[in-house]
Amino acid sequence: MGQKRIGILTSGGDCPGLNAVIRAVVSHARLTYNWEVLGIPYATQGLLERQTIPLDLHCFDLGGIDPLLSMGGTILGTINKGDTLARATAIVASYHALALNALIAIGGDGSLAILHRLARLGNWNIVAIPKTIDNDVALTERAIGFDTAVNTITDALNRLTFTAASHDRVMVVEVMGRTSGHLALHAGIAGGADCILIPEISYSIAKICKHIQDLRDRVHRRFAIIVVAKGAKPATETPSCDAASLKDCGIGQYITTQISRYFTEHIDIRASVLGHIQRGGIPSAADRLMATAFGKAAVDLIAQERYDRMVAWQNGQVIPVPLQEVLSHCPLFVNPQSYLVETARAVGVYVGNFT
Amino acid sequence: MGQKRIGILTSGGDCPGLNAVIRAVVSHARLTYNWEVLGIPYATQGLLERQTIPLDLHCFDLGGIDPLLSMGGTILGTINKGDTLARATAIVASYHALALNALIAIGGDGSLAILHRLARLGNWNIVAIPKTIDNDVALTERAIGFDTAVNTITDALNRLTFTAASHDRVMVVEVMGRTSGHLALHAGIAGGADCILIPEISYSIAKICKHIQDLRDRVHRRFAIIVVAKGAKPATETPSCDAASLKDCGIGQYITTQISRYFTEHIDIRASVLGHIQRGGIPSAADRLMATAFGKAAVDLIAQERYDRMVAWQNGQVIPVPLQEVLSHCPLFVNPQSYLVETARAVGVYVGNFT
Amino acid sequence: MGQKRIGILTSGGDCPGLNAVIRAVVSHARLTYNWEVLGIPYATQGLLERQTIPLDLHCFDLGGIDPLLSMGGTILGTINKGDTLARATAIVASYHALALNALIAIGGDGSLAILHRLARLGNWNIVAIPKTIDNDVALTERAIGFDTAVNTITDALNRLTFTAASHDRVMVVEVMGRTSGHLALHAGIAGGADCILIPEISYSIAKICKHIQDLRDRVHRRFAIIVVAKGAKPATETPSCDAASLKDCGIGQYITTQISRYFTEHIDIRASVLGHIQRGGIPSAADRLMATAFGKAAVDLIAQERYDRMVAWQNGQVIPVPLQEVLSHCPLFVNPQSYLVETARAVGVYVGNFT
Amino acid sequence: MGQKRIGILTSGGDCPGLNAVIRAVVSHARLTYNWEVLGIPYATQGLLERQTIPLDLHCFDLGGIDPLLSMGGTILGTINKGDTLARATAIVASYHALALNALIAIGGDGSLAILHRLARLGNWNIVAIPKTIDNDVALTERAIGFDTAVNTITDALNRLTFTAASHDRVMVVEVMGRTSGHLALHAGIAGGADCILIPEISYSIAKICKHIQDLRDRVHRRFAIIVVAKGAKPATETPSCDAASLKDCGIGQYITTQISRYFTEHIDIRASVLGHIQRGGIPSAADRLMATAFGKAAVDLIAQERYDRMVAWQNGQVIPVPLQEVLSHCPLFVNPQSYLVETARAVGVYVGNFT
Repeated sequence: MGQKRIGILTSGGDCPGLNAVIRAVVSHARLTYNWEVLGIPYATQGLLERQTIPLDLHCFDLGGIDPLLSMGGTILGTINKGDTLARATAIVASYHALALNALIAIGGDGSLAILHRLARLGNWNIVAIPKTIDNDVALTERAIGFDTAVNTITDALNRLTFTAASHDRVMVVEVMGRTSGHLALHAGIAGGADCILIPEISYSIAKICKHIQDLRDRVHRRFAIIVVAKGAKPATETPSCDAASLKDCGIGQYITTQISRYFTEHIDIRASVLGHIQRGGIPSAADRLMATAFGKAAVDLIAQERYDRMVAWQNGQVIPVPLQEVLSHCPLFVNPQSYLVETARAVGVYVGNFT
Repeated sequence: MGQKRIGILTSGGDCPGLNAVIRAVVSHARLTYNWEVLGIPYATQGLLERQTIPLDLHCFDLGGIDPLLSMGGTILGTINKGDTLARATAIVASYHALALNALIAIGGDGSLAILHRLARLGNWNIVAIPKTIDNDVALTERAIGFDTAVNTITDALNRLTFTAASHDRVMVVEVMGRTSGHLALHAGIAGGADCILIPEISYSIAKICKHIQDLRDRVHRRFAIIVVAKGAKPATETPSCDAASLKDCGIGQYITTQISRYFTEHIDIRASVLGHIQRGGIPSAADRLMATAFGKAAVDLIAQERYDRMVAWQNGQVIPVPLQEVLSHCPLFVNPQSYLVETARAVGVYVGNFT
Repeated sequence: MGQKRIGILTSGGDCPGLNAVIRAVVSHARLTYNWEVLGIPYATQGLLERQTIPLDLHCFDLGGIDPLLSMGGTILGTINKGDTLARATAIVASYHALALNALIAIGGDGSLAILHRLARLGNWNIVAIPKTIDNDVALTERAIGFDTAVNTITDALNRLTFTAASHDRVMVVEVMGRTSGHLALHAGIAGGADCILIPEISYSIAKICKHIQDLRDRVHRRFAIIVVAKGAKPATETPSCDAASLKDCGIGQYITTQISRYFTEHIDIRASVLGHIQRGGIPSAADRLMATAFGKAAVDLIAQERYDRMVAWQNGQVIPVPLQEVLSHCPLFVNPQSYLVETARAVGVYVGNFT
Repeated sequence: MGQKRIGILTSGGDCPGLNAVIRAVVSHARLTYNWEVLGIPYATQGLLERQTIPLDLHCFDLGGIDPLLSMGGTILGTINKGDTLARATAIVASYHALALNALIAIGGDGSLAILHRLARLGNWNIVAIPKTIDNDVALTERAIGFDTAVNTITDALNRLTFTAASHDRVMVVEVMGRTSGHLALHAGIAGGADCILIPEISYSIAKICKHIQDLRDRVHRRFAIIVVAKGAKPATETPSCDAASLKDCGIGQYITTQISRYFTEHIDIRASVLGHIQRGGIPSAADRLMATAFGKAAVDLIAQERYDRMVAWQNGQVIPVPLQEVLSHCPLFVNPQSYLVETARAVGVYVGNFT
């Protein structure tokens, strides 16, 4: 198959496991195929500026230890968004100036869509690897970073449960998920939440409050844990003044205020916004394993010159799927009738709408 | 479907996530169906002695916190094996004396085989839930406890890597896996091992040593991490004296000695046996989630009176599979041509046989 | 010394290690002295209502495991504050109605001051155990909960560093500490922060920004981690409109806005409020050990009828100190000339005032 | 004080926190004093071979992140022992050939004694920093690595407790500590062990077995956790055949066999040797903080030309103590009448001799 020069970049929000992908790509491309591998820093920004970082086996070693497998974030840097399409012509020119045979792009659905468009425009060879703590990339069971983020949030919920229980407090925990609620749903079940509010299933403040009251009446439990995805939505429209308040204070604080107002007696209720810690941390074993498998698969696709594909995890296997097909199904929402939603309800969690 | 009395027991080696299954079964059976749930302590031993522990919502609560979701081990106790079949008649009589409508059995392939046989013999209704850190139960991608054990071993490998690197030391790490190497393979890749030796692919001491020497020559790395499953086997028969020695000292120490003898110069090499810590710990988010989903599914199968089935994780879904079919495929070995074996080799790991 | 009936309560904000104290008190009082131990739920609220929870060895056991040593929060519940002094007469009457010989109070400086006053008023026998994640109780090197909270924040800083570095982002991390900065200072050094802003040393936005700029110019590092205690204060008075804004949005967001305005070019800067997760979690080994030692010491003080004392950790030993003396020195601030402040500066951290 | 060239080396067994010391030394020496800093790899071996690694701010940076603060092991490498004194003349010559003004040595009591002797012999300027997971260096409350190791063992004990409880099993856990039992004592208390056997207090198999039996009779607990330091010794001499067996199998397995033989009925009892994982891992916040404070203090001592001293942690402060005086008190044993031994007994732990 001959000598190749391939590029690799990370795009969109960072997450744990990106460096493990980079390590696997470099290992396989160098050891098996003896290709040249160039890291492109800061996604399309680096491409535009024609910056490259030559990557080789052990090039980041520390005293013999390769830190990439267990290191969070991305050694290549990333950007969340930019005026990429406005500068499409210049970026396309840069790609060709770098004389790359193919580009491995690690990103979420937004980044992959842009890169897919650029690749078509510029006649590039692209292979995509899905990453996103939101897990909303279609046609793959999991994307890189999701398992670690679920563990991080689950751990945070356990911490908050101890303090909530000690103070008879209702704790509203805001987690990531603007359009999809996979993260809130998985971590909420694993962390033993009492209510899980996600964008896909509208919630009712009255029903949340009834659930809290039931816990008090039925099992004499005076605390509760409510997990709220950023994009959770109420079943009925709220007056415009409330909408303004939601925008200002965030969904966690907004729901906290709504619940607080609903109860006639005083209840101790607090909001906690988990924020950026959800993206950080040492990748879990499952994320490292999948990152390594994805990195290997992406390199093999290039060797086979099967481009415009995304590597996907399906039924315990890594398989290639057409990138176009993936993007046409993204973002992947939680199915309100899915098994996990039913599972949450089976263990007594309020997941919106009916209880 | 009417009122039922169901039993639940845990059998075989313990692992993290068993209590999360028990919690989900009790929640769903009580909240959704209002059935009576009896815990059977110490598997068939408790059954034989007709001991039961009535289980209800919140019956283990600590200051309002339900500890079962995050607690390792099994609150019901378990036994590894016993003279169960010899006492089959008495056990069968006990089951009927307890007037159970169905029994949920959480176990590995060995335990499930015995319980399946007893159930047939005694005309029981049984629903099985797979658990085993070995992950060798067929027809399910994962069994409860495996993800946590992989994380535990991966963490241990990271710890050992720091100390090995500081001392230019070869570290031979013995992990569980008498007949199947899933645990060693997953954790070895995630933990960045240099060699992974599993029962399914025979190893060669000469090739391990060549790999260690290559690391020294090629990248000036003087440490190495070798993960060895308990049941790993050499490609060629060793003389009987060595076999005796293997039996006495364990595979980790045995390979350590073999490697040490192979090198003409002195090398710093040590064995580390991870042992029982591999079974312990707080269950990972994925294990808690799957435990909850399995518990719910098992209860629903009883509601539908679909017995002699095991709940399985396939392609991100929980589905029931005939228990008989599962057992006929157990234990599930690592396929030497599998994607993960190839992945390990792609990142430069020696996994036995050819390099 | 005869048979005694002793009470134990936890007061103020919860933290990890409280249950380990309760366990040690019960163990030693029951095993060594055979006294009766009554838990008083929700601090003075439970006392007022004359509620008690009889405590005995293993009374919270789960399948033989005593969960108290490793369980966060407090099994007895707690209250942050109340109209305790307004109801002093009733509380005093309750204490005597319960026929207690002595009361072990676990609290921070605020709670201990109130209980000390009540004890004097009511002629009680009190022994105090210091707990607070702020570590601002005088005459003891450490209070229960501090070591765990420092580890929690350090871990969060590590997570945030990965994501900040990947995005070239300045991250402003708000941590607890309204009047004292021990938590921010310890965790900031351990977590590798670039700036640590504490109540005891006023900060300058100009100098923070110069520090950020220096990192960019000198070592080409474009991210930075700024740890801010809740009570951090600027060196110069800000206009009243800003003070209003500070009150509304919190110190983290306030400083984020100030820094953002200071730079003429756009910088990527975000605030992250760690919030209640700082109180939660499994207690560290050091907190469990100190909790056990403190619990034992408190019981021995009662046996010796040496009351009105607090157990303290000094120079690796547990010693009793007069409670009155402790309270007259509380809260304990960070000394701006202390060794740790100098240590932070030695490794290049901006800790306020001069750099 | 003028320009200096200083060396730094790590000696003896590795532990978490060594890299944090190196980072602090380099930061302070470069930022505050602008000295040249040379790392000496592999302790006296590197010195003998006149190898040096120039160290500067950020010289190990990964994408802007300084990994040294949180990285276990030692980037400089270390040796456990060697024929150092036999080659003293050559080592002394090397030191002078490198034109160092002073050497910072991070080591345990064994390494520091050798380096102290070499320094006297060679007329070196030496400043010592204590590290050892055994915590047996005199005149300092803690040495680097101890807090992390205690947390690691405590976590392992928690894991083993779950599995022991599930199987009604006695678990004998062998931990480090050939001559001193600080590690076993601290972790044993924090991890809730039932028996703690240390070199300083001889144990009796009969009393251990009585303790196990008491747990069964008194609280119906059929599992037990026994922590054994490597150097634990029985109160009475065992026959020579047993001594041979002890040497072969290790103290953990030896005690396991002894207990097993003592009971007339069968008990489920297993040994677990924690081994090298005790040295590894990410340093705890306390170890990172102390490492940073020690590194800063060592550099300041050189600036003040106060040599032949060790930095020590006493009463929450870092102070210099004469190295000669430290060594004359090493190793520091557990005082059998100490507060912690009494604390363990107060919560019902058998710590040897009388119960």
